[in-house]
Amino acid sequence: MRIAVLGVGLIGGSVGMAVRRFVAGAEVVGHGRDPARVERARELGAIDAVAGTLEEALDGAEVCFACAPVGALPDQVGAALAAAGEDCVVTDVGSTKRQLVAAIDDPRFVGGHPIAGAETAGVEHARAELFQGAVWYLTPTERTGGLLYERLHRLLKQIGAKPAAVDPETHDRLVAVFSHLPHVLANVLVRHAAGPLLEQGEALRQVGPSFRDASRVAGANTAMWADVYRSNSEAVAAEARRFARSLEEVAELLESGGDVAAWNDDAREARRRLLEADLTGRPVHELRLTVPNRPGIVASVALALGRAGVNIVDLTLAPASDMLTGAMTLWIAGDGEAARATELIGELGFPVAEL
Amino acid sequence: MRIAVLGVGLIGGSVGMAVRRFVAGAEVVGHGRDPARVERARELGAIDAVAGTLEEALDGAEVCFACAPVGALPDQVGAALAAAGEDCVVTDVGSTKRQLVAAIDDPRFVGGHPIAGAETAGVEHARAELFQGAVWYLTPTERTGGLLYERLHRLLKQIGAKPAAVDPETHDRLVAVFSHLPHVLANVLVRHAAGPLLEQGEALRQVGPSFRDASRVAGANTAMWADVYRSNSEAVAAEARRFARSLEEVAELLESGGDVAAWNDDAREARRRLLEADLTGRPVHELRLTVPNRPGIVASVALALGRAGVNIVDLTLAPASDMLTGAMTLWIAGDGEAARATELIGELGFPVAEL
Repeated sequence: MRIAVLGVGLIGGSVGMAVRRFVAGAEVVGHGRDPARVERARELGAIDAVAGTLEEALDGAEVCFACAPVGALPDQVGAALAAAGEDCVVTDVGSTKRQLVAAIDDPRFVGGHPIAGAETAGVEHARAELFQGAVWYLTPTERTGGLLYERLHRLLKQIGAKPAAVDPETHDRLVAVFSHLPHVLANVLVRHAAGPLLEQGEALRQVGPSFRDASRVAGANTAMWADVYRSNSEAVAAEARRFARSLEEVAELLESGGDVAAWNDDAREARRRLLEADLTGRPVHELRLTVPNRPGIVASVALALGRAGVNIVDLTLAPASDMLTGAMTLWIAGDGEAARATELIGELGFPVAEL
Repeated sequence: MRIAVLGVGLIGGSVGMAVRRFVAGAEVVGHGRDPARVERARELGAIDAVAGTLEEALDGAEVCFACAPVGALPDQVGAALAAAGEDCVVTDVGSTKRQLVAAIDDPRFVGGHPIAGAETAGVEHARAELFQGAVWYLTPTERTGGLLYERLHRLLKQIGAKPAAVDPETHDRLVAVFSHLPHVLANVLVRHAAGPLLEQGEALRQVGPSFRDASRVAGANTAMWADVYRSNSEAVAAEARRFARSLEEVAELLESGGDVAAWNDDAREARRRLLEADLTGRPVHELRLTVPNRPGIVASVALALGRAGVNIVDLTLAPASDMLTGAMTLWIAGDGEAARATELIGELGFPVAEL
């Protein structure tokens, strides 16, 4: 089976590596605008062969992955469909689906979005295991050819992903809530804060961990995110307005002396449900400890836990205002593991509290 | 000089330890509602002596720190002033100031708020160095006695803090933006997300790092936060409404096809200014790497950097969907340190990218 990969960055490269590793008898042909990068992908083992043109890549292909940036996908998918044979399924890996699916009307096209690898771009970070256990959304329509859809579905399962069919509107609303909206909030927050905080000079170093967490993704890669916002503008705008209404309600609750304790407890419960459903299915414990803020200290904690076989599922570190100490927060899955972690950290001499 | 500390938790305990360590000839007398906890504070070296009553603690005191939870401060400060002599300055350490300062009309009172130690409660986490380099807001009014203010100011400097006078309104607006609002946003976000995400079952494990960061403080300690929200309701409500208006503007920008790239770049610039003004004054570099998600891996990275004397100012770790790999983000201050870190991580065999 011949697989065409258009655009060999992190996702395209990982698709190539995964197909080469897990799909017997498959040949991966790569094409991209920058010949040097495609050649680099071949050197790294992401593709078997380099195609000089898109048409050459599609020649005889049974599956095509369009991996251009979101804004370039309508053109790339259109060109791929024009070059592809009747028996070729063309899919994409863009992080929004509604606009693209609306723009393409072809039984050979199935929109797709693997929930993996958003963290780092470039074929240098590609890996065959990227999709192991990852949900891979697919957005078939009533026009989608059944046999072609089945072929794509089977291929995705072979490379370790969990294909999940969803309609484009639901998909775009989901990613708006759990990915795009957090970026919008971070952007708005830093703009609000930059004014009053920068006026205060001395106090700047004192920004707390909550602000740091909330602002971390502010101004993420504009080239990518401008595309994402534009292609999901309707859902993101709707979620932003819904969020704005909730904030107005919070303001009213505060002004009217309402039950803020109940409101905060609701949030605690919502977070607990999200945390526990997340990752492991096991109860997640949150441990906070105070450690000296010097080189090697993260290592000593991580090593002690590592030696005992306790895995850290999430970790943050924030220096205290004195820069001499810092607050480290660890998330540990499993009751036994958390108890063991607490014990080990205590033995290292660091005060630890479960939150 | 006799110092009274009312409430010996993290802050009160640390004040006691710091005074005992850094102020020659001072005696710290502690009082609290729970005799066992006050005794524990004495055992830990936070206070010299236990006072059975508030009056006994204030007897002969020249400085009094009221360290009750925010909601209990008006009563505690009032009682302290009633018991204190003419030559005693009474201050507090509450995280909001407007309500308290408005409630207390006494030349011996100066509102205070150290920006330190919010991360963990309890005298077990108290330490003498907690206030080294920390801004300590003071809210003197026109009625405040000059000599008493000067005494408090000098004492705070002796324990390593940087006292900074500010009016209560400005103070409360500042903490609303950089501490209370991030908590409100996290609370609203998890409530919004719990619905759609929990409906999706399979997709739950796939929540990205941006969502994790943005929701981390959701539902923080209700006993403390309900008090904080109530005591700063006006400023938090105003900031929530201002934030809501900004979100409406973002929605309009998205719907009208406006320049989202410029909007995102503005946020990037605001974050850069905040980051660089934060902590170090040196340029902060953000490195992203992909690592195997197994025990000990954080240690190997942290150790390599530690051995080379490169300090990590901030660090997050988020498992990828496969749970076999994870994205680690490191913040390193200084150009040379960041370059060295990149080199060392490369030598460990992990792909690394500067964001």
